[in-house]
Amino acid sequence: MDIGKEKKPILICGLPGIGNIGRLAVDYIIDKFEMKKVCDIYSTHLPAQVFVSPESIVSLPKNTLYFKELSKTKSILIFTGDFQGTTIEGQYELSETILNLASEMGVTEVYTLGGYGIGKIVENPRIIGAVTDAKMKKKLSSKGVIFSENEPGGGIIGSAGIILGMAGEFYHMDAACLMGETPGFFTDPKGSIELIKALSKIVKFNIKLEDLEERAKSIEQITEKMHGEAQGKEQKEDLGYFV
Amino acid sequence: MDIGKEKKPILICGLPGIGNIGRLAVDYIIDKFEMKKVCDIYSTHLPAQVFVSPESIVSLPKNTLYFKELSKTKSILIFTGDFQGTTIEGQYELSETILNLASEMGVTEVYTLGGYGIGKIVENPRIIGAVTDAKMKKKLSSKGVIFSENEPGGGIIGSAGIILGMAGEFYHMDAACLMGETPGFFTDPKGSIELIKALSKIVKFNIKLEDLEERAKSIEQITEKMHGEAQGKEQKEDLGYFV
Amino acid sequence: MDIGKEKKPILICGLPGIGNIGRLAVDYIIDKFEMKKVCDIYSTHLPAQVFVSPESIVSLPKNTLYFKELSKTKSILIFTGDFQGTTIEGQYELSETILNLASEMGVTEVYTLGGYGIGKIVENPRIIGAVTDAKMKKKLSSKGVIFSENEPGGGIIGSAGIILGMAGEFYHMDAACLMGETPGFFTDPKGSIELIKALSKIVKFNIKLEDLEERAKSIEQITEKMHGEAQGKEQKEDLGYFV
Amino acid sequence: MDIGKEKKPILICGLPGIGNIGRLAVDYIIDKFEMKKVCDIYSTHLPAQVFVSPESIVSLPKNTLYFKELSKTKSILIFTGDFQGTTIEGQYELSETILNLASEMGVTEVYTLGGYGIGKIVENPRIIGAVTDAKMKKKLSSKGVIFSENEPGGGIIGSAGIILGMAGEFYHMDAACLMGETPGFFTDPKGSIELIKALSKIVKFNIKLEDLEERAKSIEQITEKMHGEAQGKEQKEDLGYFV
Repeated sequence: MDIGKEKKPILICGLPGIGNIGRLAVDYIIDKFEMKKVCDIYSTHLPAQVFVSPESIVSLPKNTLYFKELSKTKSILIFTGDFQGTTIEGQYELSETILNLASEMGVTEVYTLGGYGIGKIVENPRIIGAVTDAKMKKKLSSKGVIFSENEPGGGIIGSAGIILGMAGEFYHMDAACLMGETPGFFTDPKGSIELIKALSKIVKFNIKLEDLEERAKSIEQITEKMHGEAQGKEQKEDLGYFV
Repeated sequence: MDIGKEKKPILICGLPGIGNIGRLAVDYIIDKFEMKKVCDIYSTHLPAQVFVSPESIVSLPKNTLYFKELSKTKSILIFTGDFQGTTIEGQYELSETILNLASEMGVTEVYTLGGYGIGKIVENPRIIGAVTDAKMKKKLSSKGVIFSENEPGGGIIGSAGIILGMAGEFYHMDAACLMGETPGFFTDPKGSIELIKALSKIVKFNIKLEDLEERAKSIEQITEKMHGEAQGKEQKEDLGYFV
Repeated sequence: MDIGKEKKPILICGLPGIGNIGRLAVDYIIDKFEMKKVCDIYSTHLPAQVFVSPESIVSLPKNTLYFKELSKTKSILIFTGDFQGTTIEGQYELSETILNLASEMGVTEVYTLGGYGIGKIVENPRIIGAVTDAKMKKKLSSKGVIFSENEPGGGIIGSAGIILGMAGEFYHMDAACLMGETPGFFTDPKGSIELIKALSKIVKFNIKLEDLEERAKSIEQITEKMHGEAQGKEQKEDLGYFV
Repeated sequence: MDIGKEKKPILICGLPGIGNIGRLAVDYIIDKFEMKKVCDIYSTHLPAQVFVSPESIVSLPKNTLYFKELSKTKSILIFTGDFQGTTIEGQYELSETILNLASEMGVTEVYTLGGYGIGKIVENPRIIGAVTDAKMKKKLSSKGVIFSENEPGGGIIGSAGIILGMAGEFYHMDAACLMGETPGFFTDPKGSIELIKALSKIVKFNIKLEDLEERAKSIEQITEKMHGEAQGKEQKEDLGYFV
């Protein structure tokens, strides 16, 4: 697919990870924008298995690049996939592959999406940022992204981290990782919504979030119910223990 | 070995796996059809050991391709072996190797055989199918292969999966995985018999199954005996517990 | 960077390891001598993650080479980094990379720094040596390095070992590993100080150690306090047990 | 080193393994025959560490090939080393390396030495054989090597197995593995003595075994003492239990 460099594509990467919120966010954008597939990337660093669809049709695990023209001078590329590389070497190789492709297509701006696991349910998930340079930090701060001195403490593990790092250090792209706060225990649409909201401000696009908000609400209800039951149970046990 | 493309070879793959039923099925076909060895495939991705025969002769672990002309316009190739690749990369490499060979020999139709572990003994094992496209599904349905929306739930792991996936996505071959229901606890000739019956309908060949049926019967008797004893034991223990 | 061979650069390697004393020693020297970065070395054998600075700027894990001219005929190169290679192959590859670079720059003398974990706090840590030949042993003995028949008993694991071994066996450089005694439980500036003192005698350079001595003293106070408390606790428990 | 093919070198391989008896046997032969080193083989598939000698001199882990001319028309090559390859791929690569070298030097006959772990002390360890063809079996049977239908049950793991397998299948050499019975719990000179005796009959050389016999005797005495004490202890405990 020939994507003119004049369309200034911005690369957004969302692979499976903590709370799956990056993957969920890009899946939603791909779906709502009816994005076009650019190419599939297969690798011996992805698991040796096939998926079977409800129609019994098989497909190999893969990573995929999608494209959408937003205007004559703006477009987005989304990189997503079934798995991250199964080895360190595989994660580096797949990250290099996508960045080579992006570079050829004229990408100079990259956002990787990830979850920031905080181990509890949070009312209003913040979006924590990490960037390649001070310029990006200033730009994103003005869009509501939080830069916090001790967060994330342990660095950024996996492709959300190294695509960002490689984009900056090897490809001289402006890049950032946007990390949505998430409990980290289950697939979390609430964190994904915040990621999409942040992206829509940064990249400037409009997207309706009703479906995702409904999904988030129903998951929240289930979670609260489970949480309430778990607390009730603990209470009972506690009572039983101390009486 | 020069195998004319006019003989339209169909590739059947049966490597060790769940219940070993794929491997057992192809071993039986190779034996009954007195198939000719095309080549051995050795790999640094197979275990670093040798087998020792009862005659004290050693052999390296390998995968092997066999050939049999069924008629002037039909033939089969069988791919089998001692082990699947020991690593993900090895499984992909060995699968690519056999598909490259098959492609050069004019193969356009592939069946991989596997076990579908259901954790219990089953009277009449079904053959569950997964395919590369709807056309194959229709063809196999008419031969008694079952296509079921939720089976197999977790995809197909290992070479039965990726040979199928790669055959479809990279080589544009018509391909299917035939999975025989099997307890999964022991080598299961009963599931192998059903695989061979399904294959003989699909590929259209005649093969006598007496030997395998006898073997299945004797294994079934042993299993039932073990099962009966195990149940008897459980019953006694239960009695002991509740009295 | 063109470093004239007439400057006879001496290579000093300090990567993370036991008590982190090698890494800490070279960090201190790089800082005090305001050494210049020659190059960064990235590798798919380093962890697939990025670090995030307090300013939220990311950086990929790397190994780095620094340079400092000490006089017209003497200079030092320091090789350090965030991690050692994550695999055996990676450790060999990274060691070969730095030795190739060093060899091109005219290095004929190499010191690798490491910790010699002795499992307890030691008043005056010795510097134990291991070398490529008897000539180096004689040279270092005269500078206070200890050569002891049974130390280190289990050989030298990781890059401090193989850079030394490869420097001698493949590059015909004079090389030694200097191992500072260290408890091995925590980052130990006391061992680092002894390493720097030994190096300053061997390579002949002057460096002020006040900062590191202060740091060592404060860590020692903390450790003694912890140690005292731990002993007190044990004593109490002992009393409780025997009375 | 130029070794004339007219000297018909026979390759003997003894690497660390069960009871270490293969390694110990070749070490003894190398020493007694004052064999000359042909070359060292280093590999990124050997552990990333160095050994430190009592003189504090380091050396990288390696495999080594030694040579000895026995007569104008007979010679032996011995392949030994500090470790076997740390990975499957490494074991295959190192085996290929030595067989390529051997092939170039005109080797057509190969013996790999190994231990056959039987889990108990044995008075007169047998030498069990496994071979590449019936001709070798006949030859070795006449020299006292035992060929037994069910031994070794699980094949031959590691380089003693794959050097043998590859020698036969890829290099068309006559090859055998000689496995000395050994408890498998400790380094066992007794098994090594039997291996050397078997080799001296097969390859036809004379070697004095006094040193090794003394060492075996003293190890046997230690073992018997330990065994006696262990039995005594068990007896006492048994008495204590039943009285």
